[in-house]
Amino acid sequence: MEAIKQFELSKEYLESLQVAIEEENLSFIEESFDGVNVADIASLLEELSMDEAIYVFRAMDLQVAADILIELEDDTLAKVLKEMDETEIASLVECMDSDDAADMLNLFSQKEREDIISHFKDSAKTALILELLRYDEDTAGGIMAKEYIRANKNWTMVQTINEIRRQAENVEKIFSIYVVNNRQQLLGRVSLKKIVLAADDTKIADIYEDEVISVQTYEDQEEVAEIMRRYDLESIPVVNSKNVLVGRITVDDILDVIREEAEEDMQAMSGISDTVDEYDSVIKLTKARLPWLLIGIVGGLMGAGFIGFFEAGLSKVTALAFFIPLITATGGNVGIQSSSLVVQSLASKSVFDDSLGKRFFKGLLVALLNGVILALFVFGMVVLFYGNGTKFAMVVSIALFSVVLLASFMGTVTPIVLDRLGINPALASGPFITTANDLLGLAVYFLVAMSLLNL
Amino acid sequence: MEAIKQFELSKEYLESLQVAIEEENLSFIEESFDGVNVADIASLLEELSMDEAIYVFRAMDLQVAADILIELEDDTLAKVLKEMDETEIASLVECMDSDDAADMLNLFSQKEREDIISHFKDSAKTALILELLRYDEDTAGGIMAKEYIRANKNWTMVQTINEIRRQAENVEKIFSIYVVNNRQQLLGRVSLKKIVLAADDTKIADIYEDEVISVQTYEDQEEVAEIMRRYDLESIPVVNSKNVLVGRITVDDILDVIREEAEEDMQAMSGISDTVDEYDSVIKLTKARLPWLLIGIVGGLMGAGFIGFFEAGLSKVTALAFFIPLITATGGNVGIQSSSLVVQSLASKSVFDDSLGKRFFKGLLVALLNGVILALFVFGMVVLFYGNGTKFAMVVSIALFSVVLLASFMGTVTPIVLDRLGINPALASGPFITTANDLLGLAVYFLVAMSLLNL
Repeated sequence: MEAIKQFELSKEYLESLQVAIEEENLSFIEESFDGVNVADIASLLEELSMDEAIYVFRAMDLQVAADILIELEDDTLAKVLKEMDETEIASLVECMDSDDAADMLNLFSQKEREDIISHFKDSAKTALILELLRYDEDTAGGIMAKEYIRANKNWTMVQTINEIRRQAENVEKIFSIYVVNNRQQLLGRVSLKKIVLAADDTKIADIYEDEVISVQTYEDQEEVAEIMRRYDLESIPVVNSKNVLVGRITVDDILDVIREEAEEDMQAMSGISDTVDEYDSVIKLTKARLPWLLIGIVGGLMGAGFIGFFEAGLSKVTALAFFIPLITATGGNVGIQSSSLVVQSLASKSVFDDSLGKRFFKGLLVALLNGVILALFVFGMVVLFYGNGTKFAMVVSIALFSVVLLASFMGTVTPIVLDRLGINPALASGPFITTANDLLGLAVYFLVAMSLLNL
Repeated sequence: MEAIKQFELSKEYLESLQVAIEEENLSFIEESFDGVNVADIASLLEELSMDEAIYVFRAMDLQVAADILIELEDDTLAKVLKEMDETEIASLVECMDSDDAADMLNLFSQKEREDIISHFKDSAKTALILELLRYDEDTAGGIMAKEYIRANKNWTMVQTINEIRRQAENVEKIFSIYVVNNRQQLLGRVSLKKIVLAADDTKIADIYEDEVISVQTYEDQEEVAEIMRRYDLESIPVVNSKNVLVGRITVDDILDVIREEAEEDMQAMSGISDTVDEYDSVIKLTKARLPWLLIGIVGGLMGAGFIGFFEAGLSKVTALAFFIPLITATGGNVGIQSSSLVVQSLASKSVFDDSLGKRFFKGLLVALLNGVILALFVFGMVVLFYGNGTKFAMVVSIALFSVVLLASFMGTVTPIVLDRLGINPALASGPFITTANDLLGLAVYFLVAMSLLNL
């Protein structure tokens, strides 16, 4: 059988590449990259020093270099771009699909962007890119591309195939042909499969599907992702408010959107304030982590002040201190559980969402059930093992029960409020809810203790 | 312009549908579903009572009913299936694509499964489904479908298009034609676009790309998702160990995989042990949440015992109790941050991963930096506001510093260990690490206090 080329990113290869760069052995570099996917070359460049990477980068065909640029991680990309002047960047950006070109230009300041655009050579392409720059980056308009095939309703297969041929180089991947009327309004779609199977004189009007799902330019990218997932779409047409077809979003971009959003949520939940990963610098990692830690610390200091307020009672019944971690930890755990369930359901909104009232009621029932079970368990354990009498055990378990209810309420309300304020609700599932619930838990615990134990 | 049909799932429509069901007004039901996407019909059925849903379901065309079945949420699906006998289920499952059919059969016990299969009518299809049932559900083999177009290397376009025509009904979406040799081994692919543009007498051998990315049947579905995202693929061929083409995975299934995995990770991080959502029953929600809460409670009780051990010291310096929440909360926050960064990098493994040693060293630096800043801050605050003298402030800040280091270490090690043991490392970012770090933090705090304050 013929071998199927799979690129192996081994450390050995990396070393031999570095030797080749040092010896300026261009033919080795070209040969070894032949037929290798640009995503793999990009990974490889990340491992080289900046000088080595730039050397390899410049040795490559302009189109390949542009494709690689798109695949680079943000950090490396910034460094590579710094090494180049506007003319070089402009010629690379012009090789890209319009959506990638716009993304790339969005990395620059207004001034630099205009400089780069002034070096563009193809005026038609420039117009497309300028159009895309108008849209917010996180919307359908911001992630759509201007490369797609449109066919007039009255065309025959021959005309349509000619259009596909004419655009073949511009439009790398074709899934559907979008059907428009004379005013360029979206009427429907024809799959490429249907075109392959249709006779030459078949008219588009006879075979197109008019039940096409489209999105408006302003739609949030997360909603676009959800629509494409729900309806199993590999591409989706984008229309403006007059239903004029203005672009297309393909599923490969959506996969990136989904990964980004999932990572963002996970980091928000963990109290990491910036999009960082393990490979970032120590300073960047520290900066991303410090803010929420400080908020936690301030919460802790407030907690200390709070407990200090009850010092007299505490010095009489030292055992009260023993159960502080139990109370705060349970409050935190319940709060995180509640808020993450809410965050999850906020992510997949439906018209049939239960009303707020119904949600709270259900949350309350779950909290009651959990609270009763946990309180009974703790009551038993405290009586058995800590021997401070049933009254003391009562204090701990009543406080615990109240904390479970309150934390559950806070965990449900906070993400809903954040969402309405336009803040990522996943933030609520993180240090925010933990800190708030710590304070709340302490308050409840000591108030219950003071009143029941007459301290 | 012609209207583009978009289905509006309004409460008003739902009510009119319920009236139609009551009146057995089949024509209203049929008309209103005409051209509506099955995913929307499925959402609608979720809102009906089981009797109503089954009524609508049985009123529909078999193929449409099968498509809807695939889109139902697990809970509703289970209930719907319970209402049907093996013959009915068999005829529905036979209408599905092989991958969906296999998924559906996997919901049943071995015995029920065999019963259903015995009612299948199409022996060729049965063989395909039986083949798929052999693979683990979370692997490439488990999510691939047997519906795809393969072309022999020696075929012409005419032969290829004839094959597409022959299979047109079986294979709903065609992105690429996979090219095989006489032994059915995968050689490469041809995009449908190329086929549209090629002359009738062109041979596959002359136009196919031999750099095709494929996966093996045993590959984990998460890895398949990462490969498809990385290389911007809308479909990927699946081969066995002899490189024989055995199936195809399309990106719509991958979108579902990614969503599932993200939800699972988020729930693991939040200490919810089962895949539940806000719409599940109170009992199911309680069951999913209770286990980790109980573990947290046991941790809290152990903490209580632990503090109790230092009761003598604590009663001398009650102020020690004030800072318990500060210490435990910071330990928890640092631990969650560290582990979620590790979880994230475990999810996108690379051959160039830094060695374990280098990772620990970097984590240590970040922890040192954060620890020093936080400890200095707390030292200042305690001296300023809590007036127990600088020695006491030293105790709190040294303990805090040590907790930051230890929690960071624990947060880094735990997910790596869990991953090596084959357990979802996201679990480590949740209640597990919080509980462990609470105990660790308390230990450090009291040991530092006892030794520095000579208690």
